[in-house]
Amino acid sequence: MRRKTNIVAAFAALTVLASAEAPAADSLPSWNEGAAKQSIIEFVEKTTKSGSADFVPAEQRIAVFDNDGTLWCEQPVYVQVAFAIDRVKALAPKHPEWKEKEPFASLLRGDAKAALAGGERSAVEIIIATHVGMTTEEFRRIVKEWLKTARHPVYQRPYSELAYQPMLEVLAHLRQNGFKTYIVSGGGVEFMRAFALEVYGVPPEQVIGSSGKTRFEMRDGKPVLVKQPEILFIDDGPGKPEGINLFIGRRPLMAFGNSDGDLNMLQWTTAGEGAHFGLIVHHTDAKREVAYDRESHIGKLDKALDAADSAGWTVVDMAQDWKVVFPASK
Amino acid sequence: MRRKTNIVAAFAALTVLASAEAPAADSLPSWNEGAAKQSIIEFVEKTTKSGSADFVPAEQRIAVFDNDGTLWCEQPVYVQVAFAIDRVKALAPKHPEWKEKEPFASLLRGDAKAALAGGERSAVEIIIATHVGMTTEEFRRIVKEWLKTARHPVYQRPYSELAYQPMLEVLAHLRQNGFKTYIVSGGGVEFMRAFALEVYGVPPEQVIGSSGKTRFEMRDGKPVLVKQPEILFIDDGPGKPEGINLFIGRRPLMAFGNSDGDLNMLQWTTAGEGAHFGLIVHHTDAKREVAYDRESHIGKLDKALDAADSAGWTVVDMAQDWKVVFPASK
Repeated sequence: MRRKTNIVAAFAALTVLASAEAPAADSLPSWNEGAAKQSIIEFVEKTTKSGSADFVPAEQRIAVFDNDGTLWCEQPVYVQVAFAIDRVKALAPKHPEWKEKEPFASLLRGDAKAALAGGERSAVEIIIATHVGMTTEEFRRIVKEWLKTARHPVYQRPYSELAYQPMLEVLAHLRQNGFKTYIVSGGGVEFMRAFALEVYGVPPEQVIGSSGKTRFEMRDGKPVLVKQPEILFIDDGPGKPEGINLFIGRRPLMAFGNSDGDLNMLQWTTAGEGAHFGLIVHHTDAKREVAYDRESHIGKLDKALDAADSAGWTVVDMAQDWKVVFPASK
Repeated sequence: MRRKTNIVAAFAALTVLASAEAPAADSLPSWNEGAAKQSIIEFVEKTTKSGSADFVPAEQRIAVFDNDGTLWCEQPVYVQVAFAIDRVKALAPKHPEWKEKEPFASLLRGDAKAALAGGERSAVEIIIATHVGMTTEEFRRIVKEWLKTARHPVYQRPYSELAYQPMLEVLAHLRQNGFKTYIVSGGGVEFMRAFALEVYGVPPEQVIGSSGKTRFEMRDGKPVLVKQPEILFIDDGPGKPEGINLFIGRRPLMAFGNSDGDLNMLQWTTAGEGAHFGLIVHHTDAKREVAYDRESHIGKLDKALDAADSAGWTVVDMAQDWKVVFPASK
């Protein structure tokens, strides 16, 4: 009995002191004050504050984020395309037929735009086609190695430093408030898992992406998974809510995107009962990044922008809402 | 400064008192003392104890469990087959062609054995074929409703009470020690997600299973996901490590199964570097459940049993190792 009482007393003291200690810190310091920042703060408050009408138990707090153009830079080409170009160059000696065959021929000539003419889906196909025959573990090593040395053609920085600082703060703020943060991206799942934990703090099991088949094999008595050329699943457009259902099995509370490929994910998420939140990152900042939306063939934002107003989604004006775009150099 | 010191003192007091308070409780009370129980306790200890040579950080502690025959009863037919039979009966008036068409004709005659002649894969096909056209949310409601009223033909208890009590204790023990517990089953993922949280404490996002395609649609202005007849992925045999890679993206620390369908999952899991753990539930208990292994067409255990010894996997002898099989009636 005595011990129990001591524990209670110590715990109570700790709680009181800890809350007295806690400063009213700004969780989103890279966001300018305004409607966008306020909408995030308020949504998190009302869904996590015990006793709130919109309170949601911690295990149901799921937030999904598109990757390219939402969490990191997707211009002038998707990061994976930059990786694929380097891989095509590295593998070209073993594939003489690529010199004649599109889209490889264009990639080898350095004309990523021509290779990308078919949009995100063809980009995904190129990426998966250049990633086969090796084991999943070999592939992950290749991506990690590449990320160490590759530099963005404009900013001349490692891609891992081109995550958007304001969005990194949103990820951290949500996790501090009991949310599970997921990536739901048209990009290849194995590619993203090679860096998602380090760059975003998102573990592999919370990364959903376009997926190729793998095949279980025994090699020298050891089981391996070998990446196959067949596409299992394209995680874009309607594939995003389908993928969320397949991998998570419940409706997220919050969805973050930047393009029409995220429209169905935003619709699906915010159609749930009770409080839900949708946000679109609108690339308006020609000075610090690139300004693009309705006419862009990368990250085209047209229908989703039209839908945002009546749906009540937050639209982030990057030029206005963000104090900085990229983190300070390391 | 004063406050900081107080916090440290209070925290220290709390820690000391809490550990003094903790009783040396038996986490696996339904297991008889013996090698099987000991192997579980010891593996968890050595991988979670700070400073241990085999210590694994909490975020990498992933344990995967087959469902049918490992976590709950799979005899005389898979629970999903019992569900499918009831669904076929309920839907038969709308499908007159089923009277002539196998395997539906056999199911409608009550001859589950004939319908199941093609093994687990054909069972999965039957189940998925009877589950299409409705939304994912409608389907979940149907399963939940069915589970409330359905009774096991032998034990005359709700299926939710036919989870193995000793395995429920393993799930809880692992979670108490920072493990994430996953189900990796040949069964339909939407079916299992309807009860996995309630029965096993496993949330939807930690249930991996055979999966049908869904299609995103707008119905009356609301987005829905409609279950399609196409199979996306069979989570059995080699599909288990493939599914683990697809959904989790890293190798589990522990794998639990009961049949040859779990062999590749056990191989994949225990081939990882460092300490890994494999366990097979061997159905040896004809008195309290059903004794079956090499000759059974449900849960056939032959190659995996042969492999267990040299692989160092724990083989649970249900008759010997378990004090009880099912939980006490509610």
